Amino acid sequence: MRHLIPATLLALALGGFPQTASTAQRVRSELPFPDLPGLITLRCDLHMHTVFSDGKVWPTVRAEEAWRDGLDAIAVTDHIEYQPFKADVTTNDARPYDLVRPHAESLGLLTIRGAEITRGEPPGHWNAIFLKNVAALRQNDHRDVVRTAFEQGGFIFWNHPGWQQPNWQSVWYAEQQEVFERGWLHGIEVVNGSTYDPIAHQWCLDKKLTMMGNSDIHDPIDMAYGPVHGTVRPMTLVFATARTPDALRQALFDRRTAVLSENRLIGEAKYLEPLFQQSIAILNPVIRIKGRNSVLVQVRNTAPIDYELVFAPKSSDLGLPGRATLAAGKVALIQVRGLSDRASGRRVVAVPCQVTNLFAAPNAGLSTALRLEVEFQPAS
Amino acid sequence: MRHLIPATLLALALGGFPQTASTAQRVRSELPFPDLPGLITLRCDLHMHTVFSDGKVWPTVRAEEAWRDGLDAIAVTDHIEYQPFKADVTTNDARPYDLVRPHAESLGLLTIRGAEITRGEPPGHWNAIFLKNVAALRQNDHRDVVRTAFEQGGFIFWNHPGWQQPNWQSVWYAEQQEVFERGWLHGIEVVNGSTYDPIAHQWCLDKKLTMMGNSDIHDPIDMAYGPVHGTVRPMTLVFATARTPDALRQALFDRRTAVLSENRLIGEAKYLEPLFQQSIAILNPVIRIKGRNSVLVQVRNTAPIDYELVFAPKSSDLGLPGRATLAAGKVALIQVRGLSDRASGRRVVAVPCQVTNLFAAPNAGLSTALRLEVEFQPAS
Amino acid sequence: MRHLIPATLLALALGGFPQTASTAQRVRSELPFPDLPGLITLRCDLHMHTVFSDGKVWPTVRAEEAWRDGLDAIAVTDHIEYQPFKADVTTNDARPYDLVRPHAESLGLLTIRGAEITRGEPPGHWNAIFLKNVAALRQNDHRDVVRTAFEQGGFIFWNHPGWQQPNWQSVWYAEQQEVFERGWLHGIEVVNGSTYDPIAHQWCLDKKLTMMGNSDIHDPIDMAYGPVHGTVRPMTLVFATARTPDALRQALFDRRTAVLSENRLIGEAKYLEPLFQQSIAILNPVIRIKGRNSVLVQVRNTAPIDYELVFAPKSSDLGLPGRATLAAGKVALIQVRGLSDRASGRRVVAVPCQVTNLFAAPNAGLSTALRLEVEFQPAS
Amino acid sequence: MRHLIPATLLALALGGFPQTASTAQRVRSELPFPDLPGLITLRCDLHMHTVFSDGKVWPTVRAEEAWRDGLDAIAVTDHIEYQPFKADVTTNDARPYDLVRPHAESLGLLTIRGAEITRGEPPGHWNAIFLKNVAALRQNDHRDVVRTAFEQGGFIFWNHPGWQQPNWQSVWYAEQQEVFERGWLHGIEVVNGSTYDPIAHQWCLDKKLTMMGNSDIHDPIDMAYGPVHGTVRPMTLVFATARTPDALRQALFDRRTAVLSENRLIGEAKYLEPLFQQSIAILNPVIRIKGRNSVLVQVRNTAPIDYELVFAPKSSDLGLPGRATLAAGKVALIQVRGLSDRASGRRVVAVPCQVTNLFAAPNAGLSTALRLEVEFQPAS
Repeated sequence: MRHLIPATLLALALGGFPQTASTAQRVRSELPFPDLPGLITLRCDLHMHTVFSDGKVWPTVRAEEAWRDGLDAIAVTDHIEYQPFKADVTTNDARPYDLVRPHAESLGLLTIRGAEITRGEPPGHWNAIFLKNVAALRQNDHRDVVRTAFEQGGFIFWNHPGWQQPNWQSVWYAEQQEVFERGWLHGIEVVNGSTYDPIAHQWCLDKKLTMMGNSDIHDPIDMAYGPVHGTVRPMTLVFATARTPDALRQALFDRRTAVLSENRLIGEAKYLEPLFQQSIAILNPVIRIKGRNSVLVQVRNTAPIDYELVFAPKSSDLGLPGRATLAAGKVALIQVRGLSDRASGRRVVAVPCQVTNLFAAPNAGLSTALRLEVEFQPAS
Repeated sequence: MRHLIPATLLALALGGFPQTASTAQRVRSELPFPDLPGLITLRCDLHMHTVFSDGKVWPTVRAEEAWRDGLDAIAVTDHIEYQPFKADVTTNDARPYDLVRPHAESLGLLTIRGAEITRGEPPGHWNAIFLKNVAALRQNDHRDVVRTAFEQGGFIFWNHPGWQQPNWQSVWYAEQQEVFERGWLHGIEVVNGSTYDPIAHQWCLDKKLTMMGNSDIHDPIDMAYGPVHGTVRPMTLVFATARTPDALRQALFDRRTAVLSENRLIGEAKYLEPLFQQSIAILNPVIRIKGRNSVLVQVRNTAPIDYELVFAPKSSDLGLPGRATLAAGKVALIQVRGLSDRASGRRVVAVPCQVTNLFAAPNAGLSTALRLEVEFQPAS
Repeated sequence: MRHLIPATLLALALGGFPQTASTAQRVRSELPFPDLPGLITLRCDLHMHTVFSDGKVWPTVRAEEAWRDGLDAIAVTDHIEYQPFKADVTTNDARPYDLVRPHAESLGLLTIRGAEITRGEPPGHWNAIFLKNVAALRQNDHRDVVRTAFEQGGFIFWNHPGWQQPNWQSVWYAEQQEVFERGWLHGIEVVNGSTYDPIAHQWCLDKKLTMMGNSDIHDPIDMAYGPVHGTVRPMTLVFATARTPDALRQALFDRRTAVLSENRLIGEAKYLEPLFQQSIAILNPVIRIKGRNSVLVQVRNTAPIDYELVFAPKSSDLGLPGRATLAAGKVALIQVRGLSDRASGRRVVAVPCQVTNLFAAPNAGLSTALRLEVEFQPAS
Repeated sequence: MRHLIPATLLALALGGFPQTASTAQRVRSELPFPDLPGLITLRCDLHMHTVFSDGKVWPTVRAEEAWRDGLDAIAVTDHIEYQPFKADVTTNDARPYDLVRPHAESLGLLTIRGAEITRGEPPGHWNAIFLKNVAALRQNDHRDVVRTAFEQGGFIFWNHPGWQQPNWQSVWYAEQQEVFERGWLHGIEVVNGSTYDPIAHQWCLDKKLTMMGNSDIHDPIDMAYGPVHGTVRPMTLVFATARTPDALRQALFDRRTAVLSENRLIGEAKYLEPLFQQSIAILNPVIRIKGRNSVLVQVRNTAPIDYELVFAPKSSDLGLPGRATLAAGKVALIQVRGLSDRASGRRVVAVPCQVTNLFAAPNAGLSTALRLEVEFQPAS
């Protein structure tokens, strides 16, 4: 007669336990944003939920999803004060991080301990990451909570500031001002899920706060992003000196970020500019233009987003189309033509352009230039 | 000063609580298998897990996934005896069903209460569905467990019989024989996850057991199936008299099923034959063949799987290619030609063929025929 | 010693001539726009080019592409007066149709003889279809050409009227007025390639001209549309009494058309309205609303385009979201809620909505309603 | 009154001539096969047809398609003796190359002048490329034709040798032997279209002939390959010293090729081995294994084909799975484990494997090894 086997023994016996998902291929799709000179680009999603608050997945899923999606670092940030599943799931604040970390480490992902401080508006929701003890944040006054997070070394950012405001128009309340003045507020989500917040974008520029973008995902990620939907999740690109939690933390405090939101990047021009330049390459060995002839310039874009360019058609020594798209991971053509029968000689022509989907300011594209080495020949 | 708000009040206040996934479109992709004459085809996944045993998702996710995947009915069947997350999650056996049901009902899905009876091999794992009280199955002797399930009106099937057997070669142990003889075993998984089991297939044919196919999914379903992977999850097609749990249960006991496994269907010829015939249509208004000329016959296949046909090239009054594929949801061409200069008159030609991916017996295709109405004209 | 074999003999010997493309599967993707009551919907592209003018493919390719793309009827309309390949290709105006027709007929496609009358603007380019003799259109004065086409029974439409106009703003010149007054102008392309022309749209409404939409394709079609680009080619939906050239011609003269342009349909409300209604279905067996509760209404859209709906949130007895998308070929959810605690009884609620991508007037959506059968129950 | 405008003037006037395809984006998808040490990998399709023989497209299309498909060099090789469209198209043998070349050059593609010498079997069809004068090949005796091609400096290869043979079993006829002995036969198509020929593969190895693989495309390429079909066209990878026609020709005579056929590469091990090694990278900064623990090794594959690996599970100091797939352009996981409790120290472990889809011999995979730098630690 067979007896009930203790679960732990059973688990040991179940080396070949049939779990269909584990037989499906585990594959990582990288997100080839370039490194910037002297810095490493880390792809981060620092706001996500599990069954330990109101998310719908076990913490390990967040690491597995992140690895597959090409991320480098994540923070699981369950609500401290809002745990609707607590009739069934423990309220131990340390558990999500403790559970996700081994899975993440087996995949080479950085994981950051964090939590979401959850109040009605104002002051709304904050994420605190790089925490040492989440449970210590269970205090009544939100100022005490934020101070505690700060004293633990936490990096604190304001989540989705437009939430519960009329028309999602973000409002800077006295509560934010107070926390900001005390030096406890370090960043704002300019992107939360599928929402880009131009007001928050301007605040980050004006108040020297770090621009953050996160998924705030509750469901399995593929229910909202990925191949099913033809989109990539939002994330924060962090430009760090090393691939470590410390370097990531320092980069966040130093505001070295840009935010990915669908096919847009939001950030300071000083980061968007090299990111753009490092990801494109002119493939023509030489661009030889005779008189007013046309030539097709081939531009490779290795970044995982398209670049939408607008040219001032006669802003340089070359005639240009009004627009061009540099498709992600592809080679595009830009037809340029000579503007003079008599031009001659070889020189670099800086072709001014706007990259309209790189937002250096709220809803305003990055001004930059394509540098083409051209050999001009007079018309015969 | 603001005080900590009780979670229940907070939940009420959070009508617009930002959950990115819920802003992404919720879309159902139907699986247009046809109904059979007098019966309704129900697409069922009757073996899946949640955080209440060793699955990685909250129960509601299983309903949401199933609705999106085009299913009609599901059973969440968490292990009774194997609950590795019990340090964090309650072991109340009633909870998965109680949690998944309201979400499923809001989407019009049928949900069946069930559980997985979990022993080492033999006797291995059984699923019992249509249970009234899962907790009552917590007994030592597996015979007592199965009897209790049976006495609750349960439909009981043997899961993945090849598991833990050398080379996944299924073995019919004394334990199965005993339960089978007592009338407590009603079906076997001929498909579990990505594995098709021809031995189990033959057993079902020989012993008059119901053929079952299920995902046994633990991870979020899109980690293993769906657009990310280019596959559809396995499932059991049940041919029921109505869209109700009772009719579903009766159809299972009556063995009215076929099993989908990637691009294959496994079942009895009496179900595969009408399923095939109901899903194809010849589009040519008339097939007019003059002498030995060729004509392109257009065949629409509305089923969500391709049909792979093999013809005996001269098995009828028509010349045929060796093979043809009727692509899922598309119109295919089959070139047929006359074999005689003198044929004349209009008649239905039955073109014998094998549909090699409809398995009427282990790894053997369905023998059927295409019925073409042809008007023969003598060569001039 | 082997001698040079005449090409015709060689062709006969080459039954198995290796042509890779013919071994790849030939598959038709249907475009499931519904038929309208009493009418058959024909999907037509009536403007396309081959190597016999400035197109880049052999005429048979246009039939093969059209069949694969789910079309019912095509007209190859090579330029009469512009044949840049004439150093290499014959200028016999009858050839494109004579070559494309047998291929089209083997696939069950209707083919219409036509040509493009090619002048600078004004009067620009006209297509004349249902011609008997294209060569007869080689005359100097464009009025003579158009009259000849008309006298052959031709249906004549003005192509891409915005071409060569500043900012593609179409201008109605005296030349058009003259031809229009003589009754020789029957339609206008409101869509040519990827360009929708709202001015031409308004002209069609005002002057009772037939709305046309065509690809005007020169390259192989997959270079511009189809799976490579994620788009479908533009086309004219013609609502005919039968699937014959005569019925197609009569429908064109009767202005029974709607034009597909990416995810939009342009046409008269009297055609767009039934097209929309015939392609959607409410799947809930009953919509039961208790008090102010919410219910998810499932809407299947069988058409090959999404429908973008805008609701007036409280325009009926039901609360509604601001917007909903009914995805092509999918089932979508619309959350409706009761607005009263005391409503009771079963009745059909007409929910007013705008379908913003069905253009009943220039850039203006179709006003219609979803009809929901609701059973109201008072709140308990 | 307006007069008929000469076509040449009209062409000049038609700067904005509406050609839909040219408004769709022209995008190149690169095929990131790596360069080999000291050599440049050129992706070549050296067998294709146009309307100048029995192809269905204008010659320029072949250049446009090739650029979009990521190729570096093409040869249009119309049949000399089989021109079924000659009632409508000129038989001037120089035209296809003269027409395709300017378009190809504007896109940076190399184009090679060639033709297909077309006889029944034997001797069947030969391609001759790097010709100076195609018309000079119009001679009766096939030996004269081949000699003439050879004397022009031509590289001559036998096309699809299995064509017209029973079951596509290639036969080496006296005609081939004669030409081979005279030194006029330099290569064989081991891949033509979708057909791989293992007999031809063995001949190339035995007789020191160059392995060729080409599309032999007649239809627009997207009708047979590409995103519509989920495949890439077959091609010859040529390992040249420079990106010039001369270097390409020399590499062909030196037999520096490998052939792509769907997800397989056929070639000599000396080329397949570095191609494989140059396209994979182990991403773990260090592989640290403690006792018999497991570690996930991350392998990036930058090549555009998957690699299918088979391991001998205990063939090294590491335990391995039976199989692994390194997906194209992705990062895959291979779980390796220690086999000893006492292993220690850091060393490179060569893990033997077969890459089953790299054919170093007919239908036989490449034997190679993954080199992993492992730091072993004794179990505690």
